[in-house]
Parts: sequence; structure tokens; C-alpha cells
Amino acid sequence: MGDIYSAKTYGARPIGFGRRLGLVVVDFQRGFIDSRFRMGGSPLVGRAVENTARLLQVARARGVPVASCYVAYPNGRGAPHWKVAAVTEDLIEGSEAAQLDPRTGDPSYDYVFPKPGASAFFATPLASFLTTKGVDTVAVAGCVTSGCVRATVVDSFQYGFRTMLIDDCCGDQEPQPHQDTLRDVGRRYADIVTADEIIRYMMANR
Amino acid sequence: MGDIYSAKTYGARPIGFGRRLGLVVVDFQRGFIDSRFRMGGSPLVGRAVENTARLLQVARARGVPVASCYVAYPNGRGAPHWKVAAVTEDLIEGSEAAQLDPRTGDPSYDYVFPKPGASAFFATPLASFLTTKGVDTVAVAGCVTSGCVRATVVDSFQYGFRTMLIDDCCGDQEPQPHQDTLRDVGRRYADIVTADEIIRYMMANR
Amino acid sequence: MGDIYSAKTYGARPIGFGRRLGLVVVDFQRGFIDSRFRMGGSPLVGRAVENTARLLQVARARGVPVASCYVAYPNGRGAPHWKVAAVTEDLIEGSEAAQLDPRTGDPSYDYVFPKPGASAFFATPLASFLTTKGVDTVAVAGCVTSGCVRATVVDSFQYGFRTMLIDDCCGDQEPQPHQDTLRDVGRRYADIVTADEIIRYMMANR
Amino acid sequence: MGDIYSAKTYGARPIGFGRRLGLVVVDFQRGFIDSRFRMGGSPLVGRAVENTARLLQVARARGVPVASCYVAYPNGRGAPHWKVAAVTEDLIEGSEAAQLDPRTGDPSYDYVFPKPGASAFFATPLASFLTTKGVDTVAVAGCVTSGCVRATVVDSFQYGFRTMLIDDCCGDQEPQPHQDTLRDVGRRYADIVTADEIIRYMMANR
Repeated sequence: MGDIYSAKTYGARPIGFGRRLGLVVVDFQRGFIDSRFRMGGSPLVGRAVENTARLLQVARARGVPVASCYVAYPNGRGAPHWKVAAVTEDLIEGSEAAQLDPRTGDPSYDYVFPKPGASAFFATPLASFLTTKGVDTVAVAGCVTSGCVRATVVDSFQYGFRTMLIDDCCGDQEPQPHQDTLRDVGRRYADIVTADEIIRYMMANR
Repeated sequence: MGDIYSAKTYGARPIGFGRRLGLVVVDFQRGFIDSRFRMGGSPLVGRAVENTARLLQVARARGVPVASCYVAYPNGRGAPHWKVAAVTEDLIEGSEAAQLDPRTGDPSYDYVFPKPGASAFFATPLASFLTTKGVDTVAVAGCVTSGCVRATVVDSFQYGFRTMLIDDCCGDQEPQPHQDTLRDVGRRYADIVTADEIIRYMMANR
Repeated sequence: MGDIYSAKTYGARPIGFGRRLGLVVVDFQRGFIDSRFRMGGSPLVGRAVENTARLLQVARARGVPVASCYVAYPNGRGAPHWKVAAVTEDLIEGSEAAQLDPRTGDPSYDYVFPKPGASAFFATPLASFLTTKGVDTVAVAGCVTSGCVRATVVDSFQYGFRTMLIDDCCGDQEPQPHQDTLRDVGRRYADIVTADEIIRYMMANR
Repeated sequence: MGDIYSAKTYGARPIGFGRRLGLVVVDFQRGFIDSRFRMGGSPLVGRAVENTARLLQVARARGVPVASCYVAYPNGRGAPHWKVAAVTEDLIEGSEAAQLDPRTGDPSYDYVFPKPGASAFFATPLASFLTTKGVDTVAVAGCVTSGCVRATVVDSFQYGFRTMLIDDCCGDQEPQPHQDTLRDVGRRYADIVTADEIIRYMMANR
């Protein structure tokens, strides 16, 4: 199926690493992970959390900048027109659903911030944070692949960063939209990589 | 397949029209339409151009704001890291590949502007234009559905606009990524509508 | 002194009210107001707080949207390169210096949000909030006039809003930079108004 | 007069150079320079053009990235609510008033782009361009100091760049607003430097 796209030069150029890597972890918060919340309970997300925890251990030991965001609103104010009822009803600033999963979020190391939209870059200080850290290459982990992860990858690309989506560090509610996302963004905006590839890179550099 | 998402409240709320509609037409330029360009020649895009031409005739007669964008770079400078070779090699500012298709683009009526990324909102004056026109509802036409159209829909949602993706006014290189996009964005960010629905709305309002 | 600018058409067009007013209150937080904080204690800021409190009473009674921001960082992370030491040292998320002055900030009514830069629009959901509320006219109060207020006024203008700076609701550390700001922005970006003018408008409309 | 601000820690920290410098040249276009245009004819702007030409000669010889912007609208569409009549009436895309001064603008080297607002960063690809070039330090030249130059400096700071305003490469319609701008931004956002300091830095580095 990719033949028509390849013939039209989609995916013709890999991106590759630049000079300084940064990691962006999208929405690994209880409301998307724990099964007692309406949007939680996906085993694919659970697997991604565990792979990301492994990745972040190396990142923090090596001094790689990490930004961790979550979705939360003060009483639903400031939210765009979401069609997902649970997002504005359940993800209240200060509530348990807004808390980062302790396996991946570490407020003593990470730059932690809330985000109002889908992309971790939209209406947040993320681009400025990465610039102050000298980052030119962004690898993205998190959930949900076909929603906030994808939007984050597109913005990272648009802001001029070399961008990677870490396949096994991203999870969706079902496998198909995850795969469709890799197909679409891998053709245009980002390299598709694995946790082990990023870990090997971090071990070998700086 | 949508059952798990529905159970998790995805798509639980329609968006609907607000007080003032605006239309955003994404990348209906020769480089994506004409078959002599590397990314052109998709019959699905051709069909979308024709439906959009019909839609825009009504929009212009009724005074509905129209913004038409295209991708083009001055000698490739100012481009992010595209994996699609033809985007930066062929879409040169001032070249034929950068020209709007005359069936849909009307510089005497539309607000016409270049864009550097995937989203028509990213690094462009689009949000400001819509605000000066009092628009609160954005309907999106254009190509390619799984690329720049989708990124535009996500940003329109994030900027706080009520957002609609006009199914038969959007085209892709192949049908599957188009359908996958409707599935993903229809669950989260935008209503999926047809040209006829928007035409009926414009005939009935203002 | 304004003659040269006037001759060059600066200030040649007033802006005026549009269809829906919103108020933006910039950094009326203890760290900029109370004299026990290093940047606090300016009588000009104190006077602005009192005028703004009077204005907001009317705004809330009339249902006018109000957005109130403050500067605060989690342990200084995510801050740009400030030359003002007290900004990143004292304005810590959750600390007293980050708290809104209760005379002007009302979390039960206002949309309250932190901001990382000078402008209330930069890297925040403010533009999206105003769009969801249908606002096309923004009046700005707050401190410090020659810093964050000015940056907010410039961005409000850039986002396409009709913009007003409320003279007696804005305060600086000294009178001169306040006056210079009115001179510069009144020529280019915003109408200079008083609290009473905005109150009269709110009493008469909607 | 600066004593109160200094006591409150304004200006307490210099910024300094980082790892890679980029130059941003704001609005050195005929409409702001040539005396036959309504906003042109300021000798202070003329002097700044000459100093900037000298600076850019070194920058281009040393491979330092240069971004040059100008204000222009297609028939006034897409403009925010300017109070300066000549901006939207005279600065038409494709007109002579929109042309870069050939002493400073070099389309064969610079990244050249139009901007719709005051800041060179607002609704433009500038931040993305600087990120793809690995720039972390931005020095700003151009006109008018108290308008578009100042807005550009504030945004450069907000995006996380180390920022410098090059005093003798910036010009205003009159001396006072230029001086007031240096006072305000030098306290908060940017180092105030001279063309010679930047030239010496470029000669010594890379």
C-alpha cells in the first residue's frame, strides 16, 4: 500500500540524530493509564509506560533533558472543544487523574507542565525549554499514539526539531490506530525508532 | 472497532456550528494536483478540488471568509526536516508547483498565504485572520487528508475554534489514510461533514 | 515630540470596541504587589490593583470573560533567560509570591493560568480561551506596564483582537516607563482607556 | 532613575553568548527607509542600515545564519488592527515599499520572509529556521526600535534564545523612544551591544 506514497517521494529521506537529544513524554498520567479511570486500562499503554521507564532511567543518568506533560484543566475552563467527554470531565487540575505515573514522571528531574490541547507544544513552554537546553533532536514517548503523541510529533517537526517517535514507548487504546500513525508520520515528519535504539544512542553519546 | 473508543467517551459530544463560519482550504496548489508534478495526480484529490470549487462559489456569494494556503519555500530555506523529498525540492516560491489551482483559489476574494509546515495555522497569520473576521467555526477542505489537512484540523481545534472536516472536499493519495484520518479526528477534534451540509448551512444563515 | 510620528500616520486610526469584550489581568500576584517581596511595593501598582478590583466587580456581574495570569516556575525550570533575578528566584509555583491578589483574582469566576514569559499570550492557552468565548476585543490591566503588560498588549494586537490598555488599571515601578509605554503602544497597537470608560461600556452593553 | 529597578533585581544578570549566533534583521525595507515613503526618511534609521550592512558583510563571510523580514500584506488582507495607517495602506506585497534595502538584504544568502505583526517571530517560520540552524543566541538589528525591533527582542527572549539588541544597528523615528526601549529591554530581556562587539565576536568564533 505504501508504494504510491514511496513513488511520490514520501519517506525518501531519513532524519537522523543531530547534536543534542531531548525526550518528551506525553500524558503518562493516571487518567490515561489506570483502569479505574474511563480512558485508562489499555494494555498497550501499560507496556509503553514500562518501556519508557527503562528509557528514562538511562536518560536521567546521562543528563538528557526530559519534559513530561499532562492534560488538566482548572474546572474545565480553558479547554478547547473536545469530543472526548472524559478529557474535560475527569482531567481536573489537582485531581488524581492528572497525576503523572510515578514510574515515568520524576518532578525532581523532569520539566513537568500541563497542556491544554493535543500537542505537548501547543500553548506550552515546551519549545522554549528545549531551546534553552540546546536540544535539536526530540524523541517522543507517551499516549495516546493516534491523538496527543501524533500531534506532538507533528509540532516537533514543525518547530524545526529532528523528530523521532519511539514505537514501543507509545500506546493507544487499540493496535490499529497506533500502526496507522506510524505509517503516516513515518512517511513525512519523523523517524520511527525503538527504546533500545534510543538507549544505545544515549549510552554512546556525551 | 470503534467500540473501545466509544466506551471510553471518545466521540461522545458533537461540536456543531457556532456564530460565524470560515473556510480554510489547504494546499490546493498545482504541485499536489497536476499529474505532471511528483506528488500530484491523485483522483481523490481531483474529486475534492471539484467539490470544493462548488462549495466556494456559495461561500463567496454569501460573504463567508475564505483562507487559502499553499506550501512554498524560497530556495528550500526555512523548511523543517521533511521526509518527503518533493516538498522542499519542487515547492519553490514563485514556481508553478506553488500556484493555487484556479478552480478553488481566488486571490481577489480569499486571504492567500504560504505556510512552512503541515498545519495551515503553524507559523502563519491564519488564527489572527479568523479572529479579525469574528470566525468561531472553521470548516476545512484540501489535501492531503492524512497530512496537512489533519494537522490543520488539530490546530483549529487547539486554537478554540469549532472545527469541521469536509469529507468529500478532502483528498489523499490513497483511500485508506483518508478514512483513518476521519476515524481519528472524528473521535476527538472535529465533526465530519459533507460539502452539501456546509452549503445548506451557508444558504440558511446570514 | 509626537509630531513626527503623527506626520508619519502613527496613531491615525482609533481601534474601538467590537462585538464582545474580554478582560485580561496580568500578574496581579503577591510577588509584584506586596512590599515584602523584592519586586513588590510600588504605590503605582497598588493603585492599579484597586482600580482593577472595581472594574472586575462590574465585569463579573455582567458576565464579561476574565482571564487572570501569574508568573511562576516549578523550581525555576522552563524559564527563559530573564535578567531580573527575582523573577526566577522568587516566583516559584505554589509559593506565596505566585498567589493572585484576592482583591482582583477570583478563581471561582476567572480563567486562571500561569505564564512563563512576558506576554500573557506566549506559551499559554489565552488565545484559545478568548476564541471559545467569542471575544474580539481585549482590555488589559495589570503590572508591570513597561514589561508584561506591554508584551501582552502587543500579542493581543498581533492575534487580531481589538486591544485596549486601561491606563489607571496598570502600574509600573516608576511613572516614566508607564508613560512611555502608553506613548508607544497608543501610536501603534491599542487604544488607551480608563477604568471608568470600560465600566460605562460594560453597563451599556449586553 | 534606574535605581528603583536595580534595587528590585532588574538587570541583575547579563545574558552573554551561547554556542551559536544568528542575526535577525527587522524591516529594513524601502517603506521604512526611503524618504519618499510616508514612514521613511529617519536619519537614525539610515545610520542603522549602514552599520548593519557592515555587520552583515562579516556575518555572511563567517557563515553566521541571517534572517531578514519585512512587513507586507496582499491588498491589506491578513493584517491585525494597526493604528498606523501607512502600514496597511503602503506596505503591499510586491510593491516597492515592501522591498528589502539592497544594502542589508541579500536573498542569495539570507532567509527572507514577510511578517504580519510587530514581532519577526509572530506567525512566521523564524523560530523554526533558527532551530534548524542550531542557533541559541539571537542578535537583533532593524527598525523601528520602539515597535517591531522591541517586539522581536521580547519574542526572541520568550522562545528561549539568548538575546541581544544591537544599539547602533537599530533606528527609530526619534531618539527618545529608541533610548527608552534600550532602558526597558536591557533591564529584563536582552543585552545591549554594539555592531563592533558582534563583529569582534564573529571574527573570534567558529
